[in-house]
Amino acid sequence: MNLIETLKELVPADIVVTDPDTMEGYRRDSADLVAAGKPIAVLRPRTTAQVSSIMTWATQTDTVVVPRGAGTGLSGGATALDNCVVVSMERMNSIREFDATNHTAVVEAGVVNADVGRAVADAGLFYPPDPGSFEVSTIGGNLATNAGGMRCVKYGVTRNSVLGLEVVLADGRVLRTGGKTVKNVAGLDLTQLFVGSEGALGIITSATLRLRPTPAATATFVASFPTLDAGGRALNSIFAAGVTPSMLEIMDNATINAVENYQRMDLDRDAALLVIGQADGADALDQVDRMVACCDEAGADLSVSTSDPAESEMLLQARRLAGWATMEQFPTIIEDVGVPRTRLAELLSTIADISEDTGIRIATVGHAGDGNVHPMLLLPDLGVDARNRAMVTADRICAAALALDGTITGEHGVGELKREWLTRQLDDVSLGVQASIKRALDPKMLLNPGRGF
Amino acid sequence: MNLIETLKELVPADIVVTDPDTMEGYRRDSADLVAAGKPIAVLRPRTTAQVSSIMTWATQTDTVVVPRGAGTGLSGGATALDNCVVVSMERMNSIREFDATNHTAVVEAGVVNADVGRAVADAGLFYPPDPGSFEVSTIGGNLATNAGGMRCVKYGVTRNSVLGLEVVLADGRVLRTGGKTVKNVAGLDLTQLFVGSEGALGIITSATLRLRPTPAATATFVASFPTLDAGGRALNSIFAAGVTPSMLEIMDNATINAVENYQRMDLDRDAALLVIGQADGADALDQVDRMVACCDEAGADLSVSTSDPAESEMLLQARRLAGWATMEQFPTIIEDVGVPRTRLAELLSTIADISEDTGIRIATVGHAGDGNVHPMLLLPDLGVDARNRAMVTADRICAAALALDGTITGEHGVGELKREWLTRQLDDVSLGVQASIKRALDPKMLLNPGRGF
Repeated sequence: MNLIETLKELVPADIVVTDPDTMEGYRRDSADLVAAGKPIAVLRPRTTAQVSSIMTWATQTDTVVVPRGAGTGLSGGATALDNCVVVSMERMNSIREFDATNHTAVVEAGVVNADVGRAVADAGLFYPPDPGSFEVSTIGGNLATNAGGMRCVKYGVTRNSVLGLEVVLADGRVLRTGGKTVKNVAGLDLTQLFVGSEGALGIITSATLRLRPTPAATATFVASFPTLDAGGRALNSIFAAGVTPSMLEIMDNATINAVENYQRMDLDRDAALLVIGQADGADALDQVDRMVACCDEAGADLSVSTSDPAESEMLLQARRLAGWATMEQFPTIIEDVGVPRTRLAELLSTIADISEDTGIRIATVGHAGDGNVHPMLLLPDLGVDARNRAMVTADRICAAALALDGTITGEHGVGELKREWLTRQLDDVSLGVQASIKRALDPKMLLNPGRGF
Repeated sequence: MNLIETLKELVPADIVVTDPDTMEGYRRDSADLVAAGKPIAVLRPRTTAQVSSIMTWATQTDTVVVPRGAGTGLSGGATALDNCVVVSMERMNSIREFDATNHTAVVEAGVVNADVGRAVADAGLFYPPDPGSFEVSTIGGNLATNAGGMRCVKYGVTRNSVLGLEVVLADGRVLRTGGKTVKNVAGLDLTQLFVGSEGALGIITSATLRLRPTPAATATFVASFPTLDAGGRALNSIFAAGVTPSMLEIMDNATINAVENYQRMDLDRDAALLVIGQADGADALDQVDRMVACCDEAGADLSVSTSDPAESEMLLQARRLAGWATMEQFPTIIEDVGVPRTRLAELLSTIADISEDTGIRIATVGHAGDGNVHPMLLLPDLGVDARNRAMVTADRICAAALALDGTITGEHGVGELKREWLTRQLDDVSLGVQASIKRALDPKMLLNPGRGF
């Protein structure tokens, strides 16, 4: 009996896919530059018990397991390894419980982020974390990578919206962490340990999410700056003003032009920086007015604001299109670095220097309120020379972030792509502690080995 | 050469205390019912390097180490063990760095919580976590227990205000986690693992704290309810209204009377529940008005609100006095349980039943906005019978919280006191995972063994 036949003794045959054509679609996530291995099977479990059986079998047979959400990751954390089984969580997509008064929902890992929002909207609630992929990506993947998004500046990242987890461990045991209370110090906070562990400590099968009341109102502004310096001053003065943006984004000149080429929006093609911000709550417009005042004083040459929802959506449109616009026009590598947010202007100016040096065009968008930006490398083609120059460019961007007390990844994760860079951010003690936790929970190194940390 | 002499070869002699009288003051924290052991020495290091030397020595000599902040813990997590060394962090009390524009401060473990607030106030910033002990307790202890407080309902607990740590591990290695960015997914989030680990995984020597801009304004209200039911309805309607209280506290009838006996404040001695709330920001008074409307509609027989700072402080006075008032009048055991916040009224009513049953008076105060309350057991005396009935009472309160999907500790920690109750909240899988992480980081079981998890 071969390996896969032994598995079929334990789980329903229809969750086991070995057809090469179907498997092909599960070999990669969205990190195009990461080489994908060949799995021996793709597993699509429907229940936690099935995931547990899979891991018990994997431990007995020393089979490597790569957990997978929707495959939108940009760091290769869900790319298949040779001879692994890919465990796709797509069929575990039930909302098990929704407690509208306690503002919690228990959802399975395969539930799409936006579907959580739609399920709770009628009760006047929303689920804050909103990675760019939120219409496609799943809660399990969001948790495994501690996904970010535009609303993080006010509501925090994914780890700040989860109260408990159900996790299948490497040996098949089912671990339950946390609960339905917002405060809980009973033992180590294992919930927080598994969030952001990139599938290397266990497979998250379900989570108790924390929801928030939908804000009464939302207001939005856009300000355009003639220089990076002026834009940077505006951001620092917004941080200092004590306003609470619910979104504070930037787009640089290259991004503005990529968007304008993609779809005419009458953006100012000469602007060095656009700042797009939002506030929510009863005093949303007042807060936006204060942010606009910061922008005007710092030298914005244009600023507009609105509390009309449709107009707000129009102002955000350029920001939302940025990724699509560049990917449509160029082979694009989306970087993800973070710095203390007051050092953003320095980072942007260094990125411009790097681009000039390596000849790789860079369009930068990002979450200015959190100091987390995505320099998008716009490659002329996918030839060897362009790829090599792109890698040098990415390398120098990570080095620049570290030199500014920053991080090589703010929200996309380490995956396979950033393993080497991780060793430049973390010292041997930190890497050693992470390895010892990995060994404690996955002694056979079966879960997504070589990924994350 | 005896054990302590070998240590004095490694660290300055003046940080090593063996005088029995001085040591006596370091044997206990504030958990009066926990038996204290006898240390062989109390160590008061001044530098991270000295803490590292201590742990290197402890590992070489198999010496048990009990780390200690200000000793305000209520669960016995810093109570001395026989033949241990107590490592008091009181002398590591420098603020190493304050970055007013980035809203971060790097502070040593022994810095008193309130001193952080005072150091950053002139820059228009504050440090949100405010455990009741904040004028005395230290950042290191706050981090080790993931301390809570009244402002958590808006700003989160201690773990939500820390970006990075410096930790000395059991074998003396110095670990640095996190950094100065608000978003960071480079590897496992070790910062979050050490927060709340109660001194059992390492000794926190320093932390990068996240500060917030001081709110423009604050408004406060108090509402008095004739029944627990009416008070519970008011709280649930506040939760549902989508307002953002920056404080939402309760005091029950027994607490009201204990305070009124202690200091006349003209509180309504017949009220079943007082709800005390605050909001901050530009629309603070508007938010308070909305909360007052919820209270009035739910049947409050009195409500007052103010945006005057001095009047606000007066309205809060009764809440702040609650702990002192009871401890002055009775031997008091302060419990700490949490429930999903919508189930608070059920918990309060169960606590009243338990009190009637066991004959132990209970005065309950707490953080209603987080579902975290402190039933204070008012003992008639410290005789064996009263103590035994108190333990039964505490036991039943923990059981009641668990029956309501709650937790046996919301913010005080497990320490030594709640070890047995922890095994009723967490199953063998969870306890096993916690033990495996402990073994991975402290294989000789030297750091605060038997505490926390």
